[in-house]
Amino acid sequence: MEAPGGYFPRIFGHEAIGIVESLGENVNEVKKGDVVIPTFIPDCRECKDCLSEKSNLCSKFPFSISPWMPRDGTSRLSNPEGEVLYHFINVSSFSEYAVVDIAHITKIDPSVPPNKACLLSCGVATGVGAACKTAKVEAGSTVAIFGIGAIGLAVAEGARLCGATRIIGVDLNPDKFEIGKKFGVTDFINPSECNNKPSEVINKMTDGGADYCFECVGLGSLVQEAYACCRKGWGKTVILGVDPKTQLTFGSFDILHSGKSIMGSFYGNLKPKSDIPLLLQRYMNKELNLDDFVTHEVGLEDINKAFDLLLQGKSVRCVIWMDK
Amino acid sequence: MEAPGGYFPRIFGHEAIGIVESLGENVNEVKKGDVVIPTFIPDCRECKDCLSEKSNLCSKFPFSISPWMPRDGTSRLSNPEGEVLYHFINVSSFSEYAVVDIAHITKIDPSVPPNKACLLSCGVATGVGAACKTAKVEAGSTVAIFGIGAIGLAVAEGARLCGATRIIGVDLNPDKFEIGKKFGVTDFINPSECNNKPSEVINKMTDGGADYCFECVGLGSLVQEAYACCRKGWGKTVILGVDPKTQLTFGSFDILHSGKSIMGSFYGNLKPKSDIPLLLQRYMNKELNLDDFVTHEVGLEDINKAFDLLLQGKSVRCVIWMDK
Repeated sequence: MEAPGGYFPRIFGHEAIGIVESLGENVNEVKKGDVVIPTFIPDCRECKDCLSEKSNLCSKFPFSISPWMPRDGTSRLSNPEGEVLYHFINVSSFSEYAVVDIAHITKIDPSVPPNKACLLSCGVATGVGAACKTAKVEAGSTVAIFGIGAIGLAVAEGARLCGATRIIGVDLNPDKFEIGKKFGVTDFINPSECNNKPSEVINKMTDGGADYCFECVGLGSLVQEAYACCRKGWGKTVILGVDPKTQLTFGSFDILHSGKSIMGSFYGNLKPKSDIPLLLQRYMNKELNLDDFVTHEVGLEDINKAFDLLLQGKSVRCVIWMDK
Repeated sequence: MEAPGGYFPRIFGHEAIGIVESLGENVNEVKKGDVVIPTFIPDCRECKDCLSEKSNLCSKFPFSISPWMPRDGTSRLSNPEGEVLYHFINVSSFSEYAVVDIAHITKIDPSVPPNKACLLSCGVATGVGAACKTAKVEAGSTVAIFGIGAIGLAVAEGARLCGATRIIGVDLNPDKFEIGKKFGVTDFINPSECNNKPSEVINKMTDGGADYCFECVGLGSLVQEAYACCRKGWGKTVILGVDPKTQLTFGSFDILHSGKSIMGSFYGNLKPKSDIPLLLQRYMNKELNLDDFVTHEVGLEDINKAFDLLLQGKSVRCVIWMDK
């Protein structure tokens, strides 16, 4: 799979919630009026992967960063002049209407507040799943998270749900510690304030390394840092950050005799159609914290204000309302 | 940890069985006359790792390829002229008498035939443990093994014990298929007889890759082959081959979205003092096949005959009797 291609004009947006407005042929799984969450990964419920408990990488519709609809390689989007607009990873949700393949749609309980449910469309689900399903964080364990953005916070939330007793956040933005505390972060390292590498600090403070280390930025150097402070004997290094060009290098003998394992987490190993409803139930049961993820809510007309805040380096996790 | 140093003269041999002849100070765990198996890795039963169910990498006596005894950095070996002979990874068993630290000694049931029990001192334990404990091979799964030496055969045996239904052996020596069948190997690939890479052949014959792939040679290129035919979504690539100098390179994005994990297996993740007796019990119960591992048995005076056979490219797994 190649890195995202530069297809323009296109409609961005891949984390969303919506109401079914109309149905294509042969679609029976949802009906008009249903509340649904689109996801960039499919869940066909037919192939070996979708039927397996272990995989969320559908074989019938292999994920690709394509500018088209998944089944037939066409676009269903255009601007008022009739010019084709490209799709973005099967969702394209910065728009009042979206056209999404049924394999990428999960029906949810309509009583869940939409400005919270939408968070499971990608980021929060990915982080929570990475902790709970990919790494299988155990109660009483120590977790290190490199990068405390939405994904990193969601990893912390997942680790907290699993009963981790020490959750160490690593971020250059000192504000992230206060935010992180809401999701279980117990310790914070700002690399710009340390003389030593974060991995050295973590190895010292944990007496040998964290049980689970998560890279949530997309930098090869941080994967190496995560691996370097992963506990020998059983530590797991989990890659979440998207870094399409970097090659990671590990010593063969080091992997052999360190007892550490290396893995990635794509959408948190979750299966959208079965796991999103389960996570929303945990939210409704007041176990899963979704409320504190949202810092701003704006209408579609103000979407660029949200991007401007991001460009200013602010910690923004914004819900965009298409029609409030 | 560095590669084995060139310390000479030294006494080689690290897979053995013996009878306790005398005890050092403060040794209470065994008594004179006990039958014991020495292991290159320690099991102190006190440190965080030895007390954990997950690790076999003792923290009290970290493994190193040292020419000395583990606790005090001295040698207990000399030749008749009084010249120091170096130790070899805590065992040095090509000798009528060996001096081994109690942390490296496991007491066993003396009724187990010694020419079979000794196989658990390293190779067979490592392979069986890699399948059963590191990879946790599931019943009904598919396994690929690169290199069908003693370690690879032991991986097959472990996978067979776990209920794997398809065990694919890869080796340049065509004789290995017949040998492998005794340990559950169901399919065989001789790369010299294929136009395509073994990974391509395995991906095709398994419709997408093996659930578990084991590298048992010590070649970086074979680790890459193993990873390349590891099933997306859940495949595990396990490194057993010792390759101290090679750096392995993986695409960050490939790990992220492949669902594959990479790990090593040092002594099969087994804890000598608890797991060797369990495996010997399975042998006595006729579950674990140890008998077919041994192809030759010779006295110490003929040890070089066994090495000569190996140098001729023969498939030799030889028990050396010090005093038959």
